[in-house]
Amino acid sequence: MEKPYVIGVDLGGTNTVFGVVDARGNVVVSASIKTGTHNDIELYLSDLVSGLNMLIEQVGGKDKIRGIGIGAPNGNYFSGSIEFAPNLPWKGKIPLAQMIQDRIGIGVVLTNDANAAAIGEMTYGAARGMKDFIVITLGTGVGSGIVVGGQLVYGHDGFAGELGHMIVRRNGRMCGCGRQGCLETYTSATGVARTAREYLTIRSDESLLRSIDIDAITSKDVYDAAVNGDALALEIFESTGAILGESCADFVTFSSPEAIIFFGGLTKAGDLIMNPIRHHMEKNLLTIYKGKTKLLFSQLKESDAAVLGASALGWEAKEL
Amino acid sequence: MEKPYVIGVDLGGTNTVFGVVDARGNVVVSASIKTGTHNDIELYLSDLVSGLNMLIEQVGGKDKIRGIGIGAPNGNYFSGSIEFAPNLPWKGKIPLAQMIQDRIGIGVVLTNDANAAAIGEMTYGAARGMKDFIVITLGTGVGSGIVVGGQLVYGHDGFAGELGHMIVRRNGRMCGCGRQGCLETYTSATGVARTAREYLTIRSDESLLRSIDIDAITSKDVYDAAVNGDALALEIFESTGAILGESCADFVTFSSPEAIIFFGGLTKAGDLIMNPIRHHMEKNLLTIYKGKTKLLFSQLKESDAAVLGASALGWEAKEL
Repeated sequence: MEKPYVIGVDLGGTNTVFGVVDARGNVVVSASIKTGTHNDIELYLSDLVSGLNMLIEQVGGKDKIRGIGIGAPNGNYFSGSIEFAPNLPWKGKIPLAQMIQDRIGIGVVLTNDANAAAIGEMTYGAARGMKDFIVITLGTGVGSGIVVGGQLVYGHDGFAGELGHMIVRRNGRMCGCGRQGCLETYTSATGVARTAREYLTIRSDESLLRSIDIDAITSKDVYDAAVNGDALALEIFESTGAILGESCADFVTFSSPEAIIFFGGLTKAGDLIMNPIRHHMEKNLLTIYKGKTKLLFSQLKESDAAVLGASALGWEAKEL
Repeated sequence: MEKPYVIGVDLGGTNTVFGVVDARGNVVVSASIKTGTHNDIELYLSDLVSGLNMLIEQVGGKDKIRGIGIGAPNGNYFSGSIEFAPNLPWKGKIPLAQMIQDRIGIGVVLTNDANAAAIGEMTYGAARGMKDFIVITLGTGVGSGIVVGGQLVYGHDGFAGELGHMIVRRNGRMCGCGRQGCLETYTSATGVARTAREYLTIRSDESLLRSIDIDAITSKDVYDAAVNGDALALEIFESTGAILGESCADFVTFSSPEAIIFFGGLTKAGDLIMNPIRHHMEKNLLTIYKGKTKLLFSQLKESDAAVLGASALGWEAKEL
């Protein structure tokens, strides 16, 4: 192969991680810069481009690079822009793909971070060989990448697949998006901590969680209490899994995927979260779907997955 | 074109309508037989095949026919079978596509009736030129056909797109599917009649509907009362449209379609149903989606639409 590598860029709210990846999904070299501290997009770009050029030199120059893929919050595949991302320092529409392409001279493709994760699973992870699946990312928020017939679902405007903002409880919890009852208010890592605070405030039963400053409780604290047999913590995972399971049953009604793959921080809870998801999904499925959809955890190392997923997009970049 | 025609078969619970269709979507000749009275599938097939052969002769023999498309309840595109259809006289799995293909010697493709409607809209109707849209059929039940990137969403098992069975009210109305709170229990023609009975029983305000035998009320009666300014009837359309609008907002979150197209009996209510759908969809959309998704009524004559939709599938049948 003349151009043996692609570059993946995982643009997150705190850090931007980028790496050179070969056709088998090995991250050959990687580096990172801070995202959050760059309030000026030009300074950010200048740092990112220096970092990328450094890696490109290390693998033998830009003739070795087939393309660059970027996964970013609110990234739009069609426009190549980041549009109104609430967690990033830059406001409005940032035509990032074009900006980087102009500066480096390699074709750039951009999509949102959850879509990049889905492409990563399809290319290197748990969805290899599948044509219909959904990736749900359970992190600070809840994101999703939906694949139908082997193609990522972008929708008419490039913004399809915001399953974290399906409304699962009418008039439910306030969401950062300004609406109420979104899936992510209950089933993100933040949502789990919120449930813990709610339970601890409303109820009076004993819990290991009562020894922690209530405003500082994290989903990790809930997990630690649950593995120590704390009944209230176990109940939090049960109710979180119930809402996710009910929602998965509705997702199946839409695209009948072969698998739903969970990715991100909360998946470290393992069976504690997976068992209730499975139970409540099956219970809520229409008969024709029962027992057919696999529930899986991502097979990609979390540290690599986002870069790998973004890099897989690089193979479809325009050759300049 | 050597084979200028296709055949569309609309297999419904009461009647089976079939017609020969040209490449521009004109129904050249058509006929129908009863479905419900044929408890024996062999007798049904024998009548249907006679009917089809008669039409085929009328247009110059089977060399003129490119393929046959069938739309049927619970029709599975992958297997070519009708599987466990609750409204049809035959139980279990009926490999109808193969059965007809063997008897007539023309390639047959089968899918469910709502998918056929979506293909009809894409080929001849309101969705011409669109690559991402959803058709919602509002009849005795609620069905759906979802198109993503120009392709119908079949899912891994051929059963995707049962949006009438999205659960919109946890622990809500009992549904014929055995679960509770499905969209179709509220927004089908039957659901509208059910809402009318509920309102008339619980409430005491005056209504034109009180002059009708409560068990015999239909959505048509509610419509007639509403156009005569009956407040209770108007409220029924408002609450039905609200549930549909909220659901449409969730559907947009999934596949971000260019349009959602409504089809079937209930659409005769026009603005009475469309205005609340639009209002409640927009109100419930995530900001990035607001003002972007068109809400349309089908542009196909209801009498022709199902046959046209099914016939459009005939163009992709295998040549025998």
